[in-house]
Amino acid sequence: KMKIQPLNDYVLIEPIKQEEVTKGGIVIPETAREERAIRGKVMAVGPGRLNDKGERLPMNVKEGQVVIFKKYAPDEVKIDDKEYYFVREDDVLAIIE
Amino acid sequence: KMKIQPLNDYVLIEPIKQEEVTKGGIVIPETAREERAIRGKVMAVGPGRLNDKGERLPMNVKEGQVVIFKKYAPDEVKIDDKEYYFVREDDVLAIIE
Amino acid sequence: KMKIQPLNDYVLIEPIKQEEVTKGGIVIPETAREERAIRGKVMAVGPGRLNDKGERLPMNVKEGQVVIFKKYAPDEVKIDDKEYYFVREDDVLAIIE
Amino acid sequence: KMKIQPLNDYVLIEPIKQEEVTKGGIVIPETAREERAIRGKVMAVGPGRLNDKGERLPMNVKEGQVVIFKKYAPDEVKIDDKEYYFVREDDVLAIIE
Amino acid sequence: KMKIQPLNDYVLIEPIKQEEVTKGGIVIPETAREERAIRGKVMAVGPGRLNDKGERLPMNVKEGQVVIFKKYAPDEVKIDDKEYYFVREDDVLAIIE
Amino acid sequence: KMKIQPLNDYVLIEPIKQEEVTKGGIVIPETAREERAIRGKVMAVGPGRLNDKGERLPMNVKEGQVVIFKKYAPDEVKIDDKEYYFVREDDVLAIIE
Amino acid sequence: KMKIQPLNDYVLIEPIKQEEVTKGGIVIPETAREERAIRGKVMAVGPGRLNDKGERLPMNVKEGQVVIFKKYAPDEVKIDDKEYYFVREDDVLAIIE
Repeated sequence: KMKIQPLNDYVLIEPIKQEEVTKGGIVIPETAREERAIRGKVMAVGPGRLNDKGERLPMNVKEGQVVIFKKYAPDEVKIDDKEYYFVREDDVLAIIE
Repeated sequence: KMKIQPLNDYVLIEPIKQEEVTKGGIVIPETAREERAIRGKVMAVGPGRLNDKGERLPMNVKEGQVVIFKKYAPDEVKIDDKEYYFVREDDVLAIIE
Repeated sequence: KMKIQPLNDYVLIEPIKQEEVTKGGIVIPETAREERAIRGKVMAVGPGRLNDKGERLPMNVKEGQVVIFKKYAPDEVKIDDKEYYFVREDDVLAIIE
Repeated sequence: KMKIQPLNDYVLIEPIKQEEVTKGGIVIPETAREERAIRGKVMAVGPGRLNDKGERLPMNVKEGQVVIFKKYAPDEVKIDDKEYYFVREDDVLAIIE
Repeated sequence: KMKIQPLNDYVLIEPIKQEEVTKGGIVIPETAREERAIRGKVMAVGPGRLNDKGERLPMNVKEGQVVIFKKYAPDEVKIDDKEYYFVREDDVLAIIE
Repeated sequence: KMKIQPLNDYVLIEPIKQEEVTKGGIVIPETAREERAIRGKVMAVGPGRLNDKGERLPMNVKEGQVVIFKKYAPDEVKIDDKEYYFVREDDVLAIIE
Repeated sequence: KMKIQPLNDYVLIEPIKQEEVTKGGIVIPETAREERAIRGKVMAVGPGRLNDKGERLPMNVKEGQVVIFKKYAPDEVKIDDKEYYFVREDDVLAIIE
């Protein structure tokens, strides 16, 4: 089976649709335009970016976590007809526990 | 119960509406457009950002504090129908004691 | 009584209106638009910003000083119906002695 | 035969057309405008960029790998009538295994 | 008497009007818009900016020198009805001897 | 005879016109606007840029090499009626061998 | 006689008009707008810029050299009715020998 391994500090996230969350959890309106922070599930995580000495900096999110992240429309990819986002770790705002 | 743990130097803030403050305290007009610094309550605080050596820098705000922060409309999230902001610590202007 | 403690290198400044200064002192026209450097009184000073090693850099302005600073309209806050500015220390141009 | 040796941290990528991928693999719509992350094959890899001490930083992609990368229209070149991209390694999002 | 002490690497400059200079010296047209480099007299000099270690960097201009500097309209201040500029030392182009 | 010695990390490049390359080699359409990566011959190379310690960083291209580079229209110069480009080494994408 | 001593890494350059160069040398069209790299003579050179430790970085151009430089219209000054440019050394592209 195909595996997608992010590079650098990229995080592959599958967005969680609003309908799935309304029952007691988080409600995130998708009233377009200015909505930028949405919920998603981390599918894969890069090894971390290199600093200027060639040392790898640690990542703070893990595969399987549910996160809130900043969505920028152009960075979405479709894989097997599902929509995913590649997000720099710096744009992951929080982990939902 | 669901918990939101900010990453990096993000601070989760619940804005304080103008009506709640007029009685003797701070009056912050919400006359839209150019109003950018508003009052809020810190709900959760990230662990601090990593410097280029992978060391964590300390945070200066704590959960429960009332702060004045710079609001940028697109970074708001709705959780259980309430509106919150994820703000970089650098955009928290002051603590109200 | 309420106290506002700036964070980082922010300085809380109360602007001095033109009318108060014309008698022999500084005259700063408020002919709107391009006027950006105005006079004010320092009300409170942050502890200084952290460098990338987590060390605090010293501040150069003190509470009570009269300063000239660069005003950017959107950073104004209203406290008890008075107008104040949160200004990065780097935008404080000079101290008036 | 002519050989193209990228410099710095540039990666030469041959994009994979949508038609070639639909059978079970990744489906990447090419509905123009906002589509920016597409699939491609790495044809050649630069030696890595120099840091400010003149040390070479390691590359993380290898010739022959299939990758997802951010496409910016103006950086395309035509070689023997085929379309290629020169992409900074930082814009290669993931390796497909 | 009032004294203005610049902070940081700001330099307080009194511009020299074109009429005063035409007799043998420099002629600087004030045909508005694109004219940006003009002549002035240094009235006061800041202590120098702090580097990221909190060390003060030395200043290269002194009070009393006549300089050529880049003028940006919005940074002008009026003091006792005269027009002055606060200029970062980096925008002082040359000393006239 | 006149010699042009680039400074810093500038590279002087003579562009290769499309007509000269179509026979088996690289075909680079010059359909204006968005075409930015073109082929050229390195005529002269600067000594390399100085880092912040005043050390010279090594150059990676040599006089006589055929390269692909990013062309930005305004940086072209005419010498003896021929058109040349001064390009930062960072905008040289690859060497053709 | 008046002397102009540039500060920092500024270079004072007197542009060479096209008419003076056509006889065998360089021909630089002055067809306005997009023409940015022109020829000039170095009249004076700054001492070099300070790095963040307060150390002076060496200059690579000398008084009297003929250079090609990037011209930005607003940085021109008129001295004794002649037009000069103050240019950062980084915008001097090459020395003509």
